[in-house]
Amino acid sequence: MPRKRMGERTFAFKRPPYVWSSGSIVGDVEAAGPLGEKFDLVLEDDTWGEGSWEKAECKMFEHAVRIALEKCGLETEQLQCMLGGDLLNQIVTANYAARQLDVPFLGLYGACSTMAQALLLGSVLIDGGFLGNAACVSSSHFSTAERQYRFPLEMGTVSPPTAQRTVTGAGCTVLGAQPPESGGRNITTYNGVRVKEATLGKVVDMGILDAANMGAAMAPAAASTIMAFLRDTNRTPDMLDAIITGDLGVFGSEMLLELCDDEGIKLAGKHHDCGVMVFSPDQKLNCGGSGCGCPAVVLNAHILPRISAGEWRQVLFLATGALMSPTTSLQGESIPGIAHAVLIEKES
Amino acid sequence: MPRKRMGERTFAFKRPPYVWSSGSIVGDVEAAGPLGEKFDLVLEDDTWGEGSWEKAECKMFEHAVRIALEKCGLETEQLQCMLGGDLLNQIVTANYAARQLDVPFLGLYGACSTMAQALLLGSVLIDGGFLGNAACVSSSHFSTAERQYRFPLEMGTVSPPTAQRTVTGAGCTVLGAQPPESGGRNITTYNGVRVKEATLGKVVDMGILDAANMGAAMAPAAASTIMAFLRDTNRTPDMLDAIITGDLGVFGSEMLLELCDDEGIKLAGKHHDCGVMVFSPDQKLNCGGSGCGCPAVVLNAHILPRISAGEWRQVLFLATGALMSPTTSLQGESIPGIAHAVLIEKES
Repeated sequence: MPRKRMGERTFAFKRPPYVWSSGSIVGDVEAAGPLGEKFDLVLEDDTWGEGSWEKAECKMFEHAVRIALEKCGLETEQLQCMLGGDLLNQIVTANYAARQLDVPFLGLYGACSTMAQALLLGSVLIDGGFLGNAACVSSSHFSTAERQYRFPLEMGTVSPPTAQRTVTGAGCTVLGAQPPESGGRNITTYNGVRVKEATLGKVVDMGILDAANMGAAMAPAAASTIMAFLRDTNRTPDMLDAIITGDLGVFGSEMLLELCDDEGIKLAGKHHDCGVMVFSPDQKLNCGGSGCGCPAVVLNAHILPRISAGEWRQVLFLATGALMSPTTSLQGESIPGIAHAVLIEKES
Repeated sequence: MPRKRMGERTFAFKRPPYVWSSGSIVGDVEAAGPLGEKFDLVLEDDTWGEGSWEKAECKMFEHAVRIALEKCGLETEQLQCMLGGDLLNQIVTANYAARQLDVPFLGLYGACSTMAQALLLGSVLIDGGFLGNAACVSSSHFSTAERQYRFPLEMGTVSPPTAQRTVTGAGCTVLGAQPPESGGRNITTYNGVRVKEATLGKVVDMGILDAANMGAAMAPAAASTIMAFLRDTNRTPDMLDAIITGDLGVFGSEMLLELCDDEGIKLAGKHHDCGVMVFSPDQKLNCGGSGCGCPAVVLNAHILPRISAGEWRQVLFLATGALMSPTTSLQGESIPGIAHAVLIEKES
């Protein structure tokens, strides 16, 4: 067994990467939610002055990186690699942002699991001695996702109660091999926050056919990865401060708890979901938030600051992706899911 | 500088991963080309008995992996991770193949650069001590790509002379931390072939707007990565046996040579292109082959066997991707490209 492997799907980092800084940008609906005060930048208009929603999403992606780099005092030219993706066809958001930033780039597609996948691979590259720093990024945009995956917004289609709302947001985490410097410059970095372990996702499909019920499609993948992590590392949920999923929403979260319960694993009290956290029930957005941007902005605006402040010491962060396309749905295929996870710790 | 980094964008592996085995599957047009005898499996009909071209492509992806695993005597359950992607929206080919194979999976999107990106990241995971083995895969299919990116095939649209034909093919390379075993079982592995170095791609855009001229859109990215590799490793082209690009085609290859020439770097005699190699001029397929599957099948059916046989000792393999989408093209965006590279060597 290779030296950093624990069990079937989990790695322990030998030189756990440091989390240096975050950037987060959201739209006005997200800013009206319970985490509204915590985001770095709020768009007043969802085109951000661009000629299309797609161009606006790309600008958000780029600027989430620029904000995070500025906070840790890194120039763009010093960034050694960007890893990330988004929901749009051919991940054009990430690709065009990488062009604007002019940095080495690895494009990923894990649907809404992309933020965790980027953190996993960024940590592997840093721990393995290949990079000194890396930016891990993902984004989504309500209006670009609706028109690509569902219906033209102009139709005013009503969504069913199991539906979730795609978050308009981009989040970036900068990782580094060394502790963040806090020299003479005006920089805001995290304090002793490190990525310690990571668990690879597997594609899981329980035969869900309803593209308006993504939480149910993704919950089995989340359960599979959480159970793999606990089994591989010989832990129980009570040994962690929090287990946070990306965008299962209200219904998918209930399903996750039941699936784990069936295997004798009690997540209640430990489990939170970014999709549930990002909106308040008063906003009446059905089952909560979804999209690549959802875990990205909640991680970077809420979870990492809480870990840095010592409010949570050990958090399993996982993001779940639904891996279908409109074409496969039309061809009658069911919706498989995947979940990648990273264990983020505050050094004591 | 981290210990494995050479220059700005290149890594040297400390424990260079071994190339264990390959799998390749192609369609009948590819089988009629000059490399026709070398592929493991040729489809007689491009749906392979499935109900759609998309399902056929997925089956090709899955079976390219199964063929490669069988050749190195690895059971599917022993495969520690699959890395790969394809050209379809939401990389559904790779996702659904990962579901069928039931292995840990990292989905990548680098357009036609995906094969090289998968080899780069698979090598990083193995060299870093995270995995004992990994399968790196990519695929494309003429009919799925045409209908997604261009026109319904039923229209019989005539392609312009700069166009390339998307290769129907899937290729898989299995990498391992140790030399391949050749125990009592009937296995066919490579002999002393290792991934020694890798260069990260950067997104390069020279303002090409014509989606029927992808070679021109990708040549600048190929030039950028080749020059970064030579600069980072302090090499000249004559120190390598071959520099092989993925799918620049006839016109893109000419452009690459000119771009490098402008910088005083002579590639002539060393440069080959998988898109040029895969079809013969008699087939009258314009500028040659393209697509994720093009470098994947040429690498696995032709390049790796040649290296293993000692005909080439040191090969820089790079694959180039055009990173636009039909939406960005309609919105007037130009077409950026990216190229990732790996240096593959025969041990002496």
